[in-house]
Amino acid sequence: MNILTVGSVALDSIETPAGTVTDVLGGSAVYFSIAASYFTKVNLVAVAGKDFPDKHINLLREKKIGIEGLEIDNRGETFRWKGKYGENLNEALTLETNLNVFENFIPKIPSSYNDAKNLFLGNIDPDLQLHVLEQVKSPAVIGLDTMNFWINGKNNALKKVIRKVHIVLLNDKESKLLAEKNNILEAAKEILSMGPQYVVIKRGEYGAVLISKNSRFWAPAYPVDIVIDPTGAGDSFAGGFMGCIAWKNKLEDEILRQAVICGTVMASFAVEDFSIRKTSQLNNEDIRKRYREIRTITDFKTPDEFA
Amino acid sequence: MNILTVGSVALDSIETPAGTVTDVLGGSAVYFSIAASYFTKVNLVAVAGKDFPDKHINLLREKKIGIEGLEIDNRGETFRWKGKYGENLNEALTLETNLNVFENFIPKIPSSYNDAKNLFLGNIDPDLQLHVLEQVKSPAVIGLDTMNFWINGKNNALKKVIRKVHIVLLNDKESKLLAEKNNILEAAKEILSMGPQYVVIKRGEYGAVLISKNSRFWAPAYPVDIVIDPTGAGDSFAGGFMGCIAWKNKLEDEILRQAVICGTVMASFAVEDFSIRKTSQLNNEDIRKRYREIRTITDFKTPDEFA
Repeated sequence: MNILTVGSVALDSIETPAGTVTDVLGGSAVYFSIAASYFTKVNLVAVAGKDFPDKHINLLREKKIGIEGLEIDNRGETFRWKGKYGENLNEALTLETNLNVFENFIPKIPSSYNDAKNLFLGNIDPDLQLHVLEQVKSPAVIGLDTMNFWINGKNNALKKVIRKVHIVLLNDKESKLLAEKNNILEAAKEILSMGPQYVVIKRGEYGAVLISKNSRFWAPAYPVDIVIDPTGAGDSFAGGFMGCIAWKNKLEDEILRQAVICGTVMASFAVEDFSIRKTSQLNNEDIRKRYREIRTITDFKTPDEFA
Repeated sequence: MNILTVGSVALDSIETPAGTVTDVLGGSAVYFSIAASYFTKVNLVAVAGKDFPDKHINLLREKKIGIEGLEIDNRGETFRWKGKYGENLNEALTLETNLNVFENFIPKIPSSYNDAKNLFLGNIDPDLQLHVLEQVKSPAVIGLDTMNFWINGKNNALKKVIRKVHIVLLNDKESKLLAEKNNILEAAKEILSMGPQYVVIKRGEYGAVLISKNSRFWAPAYPVDIVIDPTGAGDSFAGGFMGCIAWKNKLEDEILRQAVICGTVMASFAVEDFSIRKTSQLNNEDIRKRYREIRTITDFKTPDEFA
């Protein structure tokens, strides 16, 4: 089944111990869409500015991503983010943020997209997430991402959206902040009590955790040899995760576990190069091979005496 | 098969957010032996002082741990460690260390123990680890633990022992320090080049990693609801790990993976109470049940299309 996503399109300038890039393609909706495109048809709703290079639009087209909902706002420039990572690649230092056309973005869902069965509300203002929800007729699976900024600044609106979604994806710090708990298990329990059926807590190099009322699933990160740039890992995870669910077209524990592994695979490719350089150049066998590798590195038997 | 271990016996005074205890039974050899005792017969070589309470000796006897090699040195008091954990339970702050009789400890292996087939060299001076090795005739499996203090202070002696062992167990910081690498995969590769067949890197709440030349295994920590006291988690892990290998009596990948899970189970019990309060009171089914739970929380299928 198709998936519809709303989020940001950006031009990023990034410095990591591995190098420096300027004005490369980024943004949560871009990372998400490219990762999800290997699993299902993706339609994107976002905004870019008058300076947004044609080559990026062509890349999205090549990946068969629906861009009817990509608004080009000629009144301004594309959202820009400038950040830096030190030796500790777990945390970015933001050097500059220019929202530009993203500041006044009001997502409009093209009528051809409003019957989407899978919907991913990327990390944008919770009021806009609600506005998107209202425009989509009857989504069967809704996922949501958010960040500290909205948890602190728009807590009520955020909780209103969270009540309406099936899956919340967060990193560990965000989950503790949202739930006001110190431990991710308690945090997940608290977030489940807000309405969703599943919580996914992303822990960077330490993997991801999937929690529902009746089930818990622990996945490691795929061990990459060298991390070039962590930017977009979380969004690529979300793309692989939601893409797999849309592909399998079922909201059930066994599928969601597979989706976590698909997310893990896509995140691991994302960090192996800047921007979408690696995630946009994969073939299906690259993804399948890495999935099987994660199966291998996590596999163990139960001694007969323990069964 | 039996296992022989050498390490410390201590009386610990510990403060954690969950409470405070004074002069409770601790020490690497104690945590190790009690955890391993559920899997195999354990013999312990260590030293305690004239003040070491009989009740502790009785507990070791009850757990069927061989204490012929537990020297009671009447010239001084038992090794004491005083430490504190804040809200971040990953790192202990040492408030006081009194080596006491441990300072002049020279491990003597009783002749009845010198044909041990499994040997665990706990975290003591590498010169003493070598001295123990020389006293054991033909061990089939040798595991070793160490710490920053010896990596920095006795690097050459440590590397000399490491060359002679099959398995090195370290936490992530120690592995990076020993290997002089920033990434645990590279660190493991470097440590393997020093001689051992397997490296186990313990990552606290993030689980453990087992690496050999041909295989990698990633295990999560068992998600405990509340951590009361992390002291002894690493030693209990080592006890479950080495105990399982001695029980299964094979040094091969499939068994070592199971051993990592046994270690994970024992570490999870260790942190659920102070001292050995919990790990000394288990029954076999408690351990088996938690092993199966880890199987459940890590299990996922491979989509047919990916196989």
